[in-house]
Amino acid sequence: MRTRFQHGLDELKEKLLRMGGLAEQAIERAVEAYRKRDAKACQAVFDGERDINAAEREIDELALDLLAMQQPMAVDLRFILAVVKINADLERVGDQAVNIAQRVLDMISSPETEVPVDIPRMAETVATMVQRALESFIDGKAELAEAVLQMDNIVDRIKDEAFVVLVDQMNKYPETTRYSLDVLLIARNLERIADHATNIAEDVIFWVRGADVRHGGAHYPS
Amino acid sequence: MRTRFQHGLDELKEKLLRMGGLAEQAIERAVEAYRKRDAKACQAVFDGERDINAAEREIDELALDLLAMQQPMAVDLRFILAVVKINADLERVGDQAVNIAQRVLDMISSPETEVPVDIPRMAETVATMVQRALESFIDGKAELAEAVLQMDNIVDRIKDEAFVVLVDQMNKYPETTRYSLDVLLIARNLERIADHATNIAEDVIFWVRGADVRHGGAHYPS
Repeated sequence: MRTRFQHGLDELKEKLLRMGGLAEQAIERAVEAYRKRDAKACQAVFDGERDINAAEREIDELALDLLAMQQPMAVDLRFILAVVKINADLERVGDQAVNIAQRVLDMISSPETEVPVDIPRMAETVATMVQRALESFIDGKAELAEAVLQMDNIVDRIKDEAFVVLVDQMNKYPETTRYSLDVLLIARNLERIADHATNIAEDVIFWVRGADVRHGGAHYPS
Repeated sequence: MRTRFQHGLDELKEKLLRMGGLAEQAIERAVEAYRKRDAKACQAVFDGERDINAAEREIDELALDLLAMQQPMAVDLRFILAVVKINADLERVGDQAVNIAQRVLDMISSPETEVPVDIPRMAETVATMVQRALESFIDGKAELAEAVLQMDNIVDRIKDEAFVVLVDQMNKYPETTRYSLDVLLIARNLERIADHATNIAEDVIFWVRGADVRHGGAHYPS
């Protein structure tokens, strides 16, 4: 019985990693769509959302099954509940990628404009945050989660700078307003993804450290 | 033992309702700050965020304790996991209220400008969505949750209209760009709150209907 439960936990972990992969792929595709002004890449993001939603439901159901299967130990309970929370964050990373793809579609209909904001670099940073947050959870490394929190400050700063330069650009060249606004909103969407990575990291610290405290640090060195 | 567990479930429900009240209060305060250009009301939103975060942690811990206490029935399991998810959404409603208050602080430093967007009405709609989503959960009424999903479409439309008129305003009066942008971003924050209400409603349909199917409809008529 214990073995079947443990097997289920492994499966849950695997599914969550796969879910993380789908979320990262969604970010990549959205940014590729942005870089290449590519409506087909936008469509790939929209199509991918269905898979992400299905994966979310699967994980929730498996978590329920595991909780119903036997009386889990406190450390396993914390793990399962953390998966449920992180799962919801990953699903919303996918939603943000969809929002970006929608803005890109809008941009494609406007003439291309030079903007002084490096969206691909910002996207790379937030994708790394999602990756590391998930890694910190899977490996139970709270210090890696702390590093994610630090990165969030950097992303906030990039977004604030983008805000200033884009407002400036809109003032100087009103004809670029709509285009600049799309870029600004994409920067906001990326900031939201960073927030989800931060939520995951905070959950890791809370759930993992909690488990740590309750189990004398044997499970999760931090 | 069963009685203590049931008592714990009641406490969990109560705490979640209180959390919902805090989230709604945060929206109200943020909109009051907007309407009155009131920095003190902004500060009240910032202060309230601490209470919301503390309430979130409390609910998570109680959920863990309940799951650890005994082997819950499937219907109770679904209820507890739904609380954990809804709890996270309510916390983020509070985050959005903080974002609005930050934009209001920015607006206060600009001269007041007439904008053709009814933020208070939009805020009222999204606050109602949060309220109804929570009500649908507490009462186990999936049809009320469906109504919340319908309202989300209305909010999306209001936000899209706001987008168009504000871009137009920025083009015509570039000197109002920053102010208009603040309003636009507040409309986006409100839309995000509507998304959280939608998430809650979707969870209600998923968790409650699931419970319904598994228990022959006795617990949650829908």
